[in-house]
Amino acid sequence: MQFDVRPAIAGALVALAFPALADEGMWTFDNFPREAVKQKYGVDVTQPWLNKIQRAITRHEVGCTGSFISPQGLVLTNHHCVMDCLADISSPTKDYVGEGINAKSRSEELVCPGEIISVLMETENVTDKVNKATSGLDDAKANEARKSELSRLEAECTAASKNNRNGGPLACEAVNLYQGGQYFLYKYKRYNDVRIVFAPHDAIAAFGGDPDNFNFPRWSLDFSLMRVYEDNQPAKTPDYLRWRNEGPKAGEPVFVPGHPGTTNRLWTTSQLKFQRDVNIPAVIGRYTELRGRLIQWSKTGEEPLRLAQESLLGYENSLKVYRGLNRALLDDALLTTKSQQEQSLRQKVSADAKLAPLADGWTQIDKAQQRYRQIYYRYAYLEMAHGFQGKLFSNARWLVRAAAERPKPNQQRLREFADSNLPKVSSSVLSNAPIYPEYEHVLLSFSLDKMRENLGPDDPLVRKLLSSESPDSLAKKLIEGSKLTDAKVRKQLWEGGAAAIAASTDPMIVLAREIDADARAVRKAYEDEVQGPTAAGQEKLAKARFAQLGTNTYPDATFTLRVSYGAVESWNENGADVPNFTRLNRLYERATGKAPFALPQTWLDARSKLDPNTPFNYVTTNDIIGGNSGSPVIDAQGRLVGLAFDGNIHSIAGSYWYDAKLNRMVAVHPQIITTTLREVYPAKALAQEILGSE
Amino acid sequence: MQFDVRPAIAGALVALAFPALADEGMWTFDNFPREAVKQKYGVDVTQPWLNKIQRAITRHEVGCTGSFISPQGLVLTNHHCVMDCLADISSPTKDYVGEGINAKSRSEELVCPGEIISVLMETENVTDKVNKATSGLDDAKANEARKSELSRLEAECTAASKNNRNGGPLACEAVNLYQGGQYFLYKYKRYNDVRIVFAPHDAIAAFGGDPDNFNFPRWSLDFSLMRVYEDNQPAKTPDYLRWRNEGPKAGEPVFVPGHPGTTNRLWTTSQLKFQRDVNIPAVIGRYTELRGRLIQWSKTGEEPLRLAQESLLGYENSLKVYRGLNRALLDDALLTTKSQQEQSLRQKVSADAKLAPLADGWTQIDKAQQRYRQIYYRYAYLEMAHGFQGKLFSNARWLVRAAAERPKPNQQRLREFADSNLPKVSSSVLSNAPIYPEYEHVLLSFSLDKMRENLGPDDPLVRKLLSSESPDSLAKKLIEGSKLTDAKVRKQLWEGGAAAIAASTDPMIVLAREIDADARAVRKAYEDEVQGPTAAGQEKLAKARFAQLGTNTYPDATFTLRVSYGAVESWNENGADVPNFTRLNRLYERATGKAPFALPQTWLDARSKLDPNTPFNYVTTNDIIGGNSGSPVIDAQGRLVGLAFDGNIHSIAGSYWYDAKLNRMVAVHPQIITTTLREVYPAKALAQEILGSE
Repeated sequence: MQFDVRPAIAGALVALAFPALADEGMWTFDNFPREAVKQKYGVDVTQPWLNKIQRAITRHEVGCTGSFISPQGLVLTNHHCVMDCLADISSPTKDYVGEGINAKSRSEELVCPGEIISVLMETENVTDKVNKATSGLDDAKANEARKSELSRLEAECTAASKNNRNGGPLACEAVNLYQGGQYFLYKYKRYNDVRIVFAPHDAIAAFGGDPDNFNFPRWSLDFSLMRVYEDNQPAKTPDYLRWRNEGPKAGEPVFVPGHPGTTNRLWTTSQLKFQRDVNIPAVIGRYTELRGRLIQWSKTGEEPLRLAQESLLGYENSLKVYRGLNRALLDDALLTTKSQQEQSLRQKVSADAKLAPLADGWTQIDKAQQRYRQIYYRYAYLEMAHGFQGKLFSNARWLVRAAAERPKPNQQRLREFADSNLPKVSSSVLSNAPIYPEYEHVLLSFSLDKMRENLGPDDPLVRKLLSSESPDSLAKKLIEGSKLTDAKVRKQLWEGGAAAIAASTDPMIVLAREIDADARAVRKAYEDEVQGPTAAGQEKLAKARFAQLGTNTYPDATFTLRVSYGAVESWNENGADVPNFTRLNRLYERATGKAPFALPQTWLDARSKLDPNTPFNYVTTNDIIGGNSGSPVIDAQGRLVGLAFDGNIHSIAGSYWYDAKLNRMVAVHPQIITTTLREVYPAKALAQEILGSE
Repeated sequence: MQFDVRPAIAGALVALAFPALADEGMWTFDNFPREAVKQKYGVDVTQPWLNKIQRAITRHEVGCTGSFISPQGLVLTNHHCVMDCLADISSPTKDYVGEGINAKSRSEELVCPGEIISVLMETENVTDKVNKATSGLDDAKANEARKSELSRLEAECTAASKNNRNGGPLACEAVNLYQGGQYFLYKYKRYNDVRIVFAPHDAIAAFGGDPDNFNFPRWSLDFSLMRVYEDNQPAKTPDYLRWRNEGPKAGEPVFVPGHPGTTNRLWTTSQLKFQRDVNIPAVIGRYTELRGRLIQWSKTGEEPLRLAQESLLGYENSLKVYRGLNRALLDDALLTTKSQQEQSLRQKVSADAKLAPLADGWTQIDKAQQRYRQIYYRYAYLEMAHGFQGKLFSNARWLVRAAAERPKPNQQRLREFADSNLPKVSSSVLSNAPIYPEYEHVLLSFSLDKMRENLGPDDPLVRKLLSSESPDSLAKKLIEGSKLTDAKVRKQLWEGGAAAIAASTDPMIVLAREIDADARAVRKAYEDEVQGPTAAGQEKLAKARFAQLGTNTYPDATFTLRVSYGAVESWNENGADVPNFTRLNRLYERATGKAPFALPQTWLDARSKLDPNTPFNYVTTNDIIGGNSGSPVIDAQGRLVGLAFDGNIHSIAGSYWYDAKLNRMVAVHPQIITTTLREVYPAKALAQEILGSE
C-alpha cells in the first residue's frame, strides 16, 4: 500500500473531534489513551515503553515506516517501500526488482541513491510563537506569515540542534496538529547512507499483484531489509525491536507505531464534495489512462516491461485507493453522517454567544472550495506539473526555482526551499538514479495530451506550447534535446544558480523557465484564495470543536509519529467470517504460473522442504493508513510480531472515518520472514542477526 | 457524437411527465405540439408536412440518422456514421478513413459490408394485445410473456407486410413508448445494399478530434454521402429533401427529425443513483484504460495507428458522454430536483385512493436496482461480454447461441434471435469485413484482465480460464488458434447448426460454448430480478403520471422516429455569449499541423480560392441526443438547412433533463458542404445532384 503521503491541501491537518470508540485512532506518543487501552485489553502502555519504541521507528521519505531489528542498523520495512531503490540500482543487465537482492556480506549491501531515513528524537511545542506571528492578519497574509514563521523556526531549531545531546545535528520540521490548534517542531536524526540488504523476488513480495492488493486472504511476502550506515560503518542502533518468531495469537492485543500519511476525518462536507466531484474523478481518470498506456508499452520489450513494472505497482495501488475513496463518498451513509455531525456542531456553536463568531468557519471553507473548483485544473496541470510528468521536467522545475529561491532570505522562499528542506531537494536533484528517455516519453506525451484535454486547445499556454506540435512530437523534442539525464549537468546548473539557468538552452530548462510565471500565478491564487481561507476556517472549527467536545482526541494523520492499538481479529464479509491467518500451502495452490500469480523458481524448488502450515499474512483491527507501510506490529512486551503492509478494501475509507466492523490492517507474519531467510534463498547470517535475541 | 443507442435497461422506455417548456421534447410524428410551436414561432406544422418529411428520413443501424437529398437514393449523414464502413473497406494499402473517398461514377461507389438503412413507412398500435398477454402474471413471468408476444407480433406483421402497398416487404419492430403505456409495431422499408459515395479526409471531418468533441465554437466537416441501391440500381427516392444552400438565419425556427437513441428523463432517483455509483464509474474506468492501451498501441506502427484511429474516436466520444453524465448526476441540483418531483408525485398518488396501489412502483424499482448492484459485474463481464471483447468472440457467441436458439419456435427464443432480428444477426455474423488479429489481441487481453480485476482472481470462472494462463497468454492462444477470421468458416458453422457447433474445436467456439451456461444464468437473474420488476414498476409509475399529469407529453427516446423544434440560437457560457456561427477563416488559424489539428494538404492547397467567410458550423436549441447524428436540419418550408452532428458539452445532461439555457445542438452548414464538393476535392457531379433543386 502506498498512499500519497502529502495532504491534498497543505493546511488540512485536522483534529478528530469525536470520542474514540473501538480501536480507533492514530495517537501521538504524548497523548496515548492509556486508560482506555488498559480497560479494554488489560495492557498498561507506559511512557517509558513508548519512549523506547520511539527510537526504534524509522521514517522513510518515500512515504513509509520501518524499524530497527538489530543493534547494527538493520531496518525492516516493506518490499514495496524499496521499489524505488531496487529500480534505481537496476540496469538492463541486472533486474533487482524481479530477482531481488541477497547481500552475502556488508560489501554487497548497495547504496540506495537519494534515500533518507529519519528517526524522531525530540518534539517542541511552538504554538504560541506561530499564533503570535499571524495575529491580526487577514487570511492570505496570515497564511504567508505562518509559512514564513515556520521556516524561521525550523532554521533556528536546526542550527541550535547541531550539538544536540541526542546525537545532533538534528533536522527540524514544523508540524501542524489539530487543524492549527497546535504547532510543533519535530527533530529528526537523519541517515543519508542507506543500503539495501535483502529483498525477495518481486513475484513473491507482491504475489497476486493488483488483483490481490487491498484484499484478504492474502499471500504477500512484502518485506525487505535495509541498513543505515554512518562513516561507512553500520550505524549503532541499541534501541532495536526484539523478534518474537511465533507471532501473535488470535485475539491478542497489538500496537502499530509508524508514520501514517494523511487522513481527512474532519473535513467539512464541502471539502468532501470537492473531492467527490472534482479531484477524485480527475485523479482516477489520469491514472487509469496512464495505466493503460504503461501496460501496452510494457509489451514492447523486456526493458519497457521492467521499467513499467515499478510505476504500475504505484499507479494501480493509487487507483484502488481513489476508487475506494470514491465509493466511500458515494455511500449515502458517509455524507449523511458527516452532514448531521456538521449541522449538530454548527447549531451548538451558533447557540453559544461566545462561540458564535466561529460559525463563519464553515462558510469560509465552503467559499474556498468553490474557488478551488474554478482553478483546479490550472493549478494541477501547471503548478503540480500534471501536464509535465517525468523526472526530466521535475528536475528542470527544481533547478529553475532553486536558482530563483535560494538567493532569497530563508523566510521569504517558497516553503519547499526552506533551509530545513533544501538537503532533501538537492539530494533528489543531484541523485545518480538513472533516467530512461523512452519511459520519460510515455509519461510526458501522455501528460501534455491530458493538459490539452483539460485546459482546452484554445487555452493560451496550450496554444503557446502546442501551436505547431502534437503532445508526442513536443515530448520527443524536449526529451531528445535535454541533457538533464546527466547528473553532472544538473550539478553544474544547481551550482551555477540564476546565471547558469538564464544562460541555459536545454529545452527542458527553457520550458520550465517559460511556464514559471503562469505556474507561480496560479499557485498564488491557490494559496491566497483556497489554502489561506481554508486554514483560517479550519482554525475556527478546531476551536469550536475543542470548546464543545474537549481535547481527549487524536489529530488527523500528517506523516508524523503515531501509534495505534488493536487486536488480531478478522471481520465478517457478506455474512461469512474471513479467517485471521493465511498459511503457506494455499500460496502454492493459488499459483497459476503466470504473473501476477507466478511463483519464482526458487520458491517452487523450496516447496518440499517448507512446512505447509507456516503462517503467512494476518489481519488486525489497528487503525492505520498509507505511510504505515513497513510499520512493525508489536506485542505488549514490545516485541516485533509482524510487519504491516496493507489494509483490507474497507480500510481505504479510513481516510474519512474508521469503521470498526470492517476496517482491517494486513501484516506479514514473522515466521514466514525467517523461513524465507533460513530455508529459501537462504540468507542465514541475516536470520541469525535478527533472531540473535529470540 | 455517437451515443450507445441501446438503453442501459431494455425496459427503461419512459414517458416524460412534465409540460414541455422552451424547446424541449423529442416528439413522435403523431403527437407533435402543433399549437405550442405555432404560438412561439408562428410556424404551422401540419400532418401532411410531417408525413412528407417522414419518407425522407433514414435510420442507420450503426446508431445514426440520415436523409435522402436527391431522387436517386443519395443519403446525407455524418462522417462519423460511416467510420465503420470506411474502416471495413480499408486495407493496409488503402486508407479510406484517413484519405476519404470520392466516387467519380456509380461504379466507384463501394458497398458498405453489412450496412442496413431503414425508412419508417407505417406504425400500428398494439398496446391492447400486449397487455392481454401479460395480464395477471407475476413480474418475471410477465416480462417473459411480453417478450414472447412482441416476437410473435413482429413475425406476424412482417409476414403480412410482404405485399404491403408501401413497397413491401416491410420489417416490423416492436416499440415500447411511454414506459409500457403504449406498444407499437413500427414497419420499415429496408435497404440492404448501401454504398459509400463521398467522405472527406478524416482530419477535416473530425478536425479538433477529441479535444473539440462536444465543444463549440467548432470546425468539423462531419458529413458523408451514401447511396441506397435496389436491384443493383440507385433506388428511387422521390420524397427527398430540397437543399437551401444559404442555410438558416440567426433566430430562425428549425426542425430536426431523426432517431434519437436513448434518454432516461423519468428514471427514478434509485435508477439514477445506480448509474452514478455503479455503471458510470465502471464504464468510464474501462474505456479510459482501454483508450490508454489503444493510444500506446497506435504508436507501434502505421497499421496499428490506422486500426486504433476508428475505435478511439468511438471510445473517446463515449468517455465524454459518460463523464458528462457523471457530472450531471454529481450536480446536487439535478438529483434534488428529481427527488422533489418524485416525492411530490408520490404524495399525490398515495393521497388518491384509486392511484394508491401504484405507489408500490417506486419500491419495486428500488429493490430491483439494489439487486442489480449485486449482479452487475457478473452480468456485464459474462453476458454483455465485457470480459471477451473483440469481433472473434462476438461472432463465436452469436454462432453458439444461434445454433441453440434457431431451432426453437420464434416466440421461445432469446429476443435477439426473433425472426424480426435474424437478418441483422446473419448479416453481421457473415459479413466480409476484415478482422485484425493484432487489434483483437489488444481488446481481448485487456478485457480478460478487467474481468479478473472485477470478478476477482478466486471467482470460479476466472479460475477456470486463468488457472495457468495470464490474460495475455490466453488471448494469444484463443486468437491464434481461431479460424473465425474467415467468413467462410463462420458460414459453415452458421449453416451447420447445433451439430457443427458441438463438433467444433475452434478455441473461440469452445470458449463461447463453455461459458454459455454461466452467462445465460446471470442473464436470467437479470431479466427476472432486475428487468422484470423494473418494467412492472415503471408501468405503474407511467399510469400514475398519466393520471396526474395528462398525456400531452413526449416519450423518452428509443431510437425511433421523432422530431424536435427549436431555433438558431447560442448560449451564454460563464458570462460570455458564444457566437451562433463559425466561419472558414478561423479553421485555418487554429490548424497546428499536428493531429488532431492538422489540415489535409488538399485543404491547405485550396485555401486561396475559398471565401474565408463561408459559414462552417452553427448551434440551435433543438433537443436532440445520440442517434440524431446525421439528422437533417429543416426550415419551415421543409428545406434542408443543415446537418446535425453533435451537441455542446451541456447537451450530454440531456439524457436526464433538458436545460433550455445551456443545451445546444451543433450542425454543419450546407454552404461548407457544397463548397467542399464544388471547390475542394472536387466532386462537381454530386454538388449538382444535390443542388439540382436549389
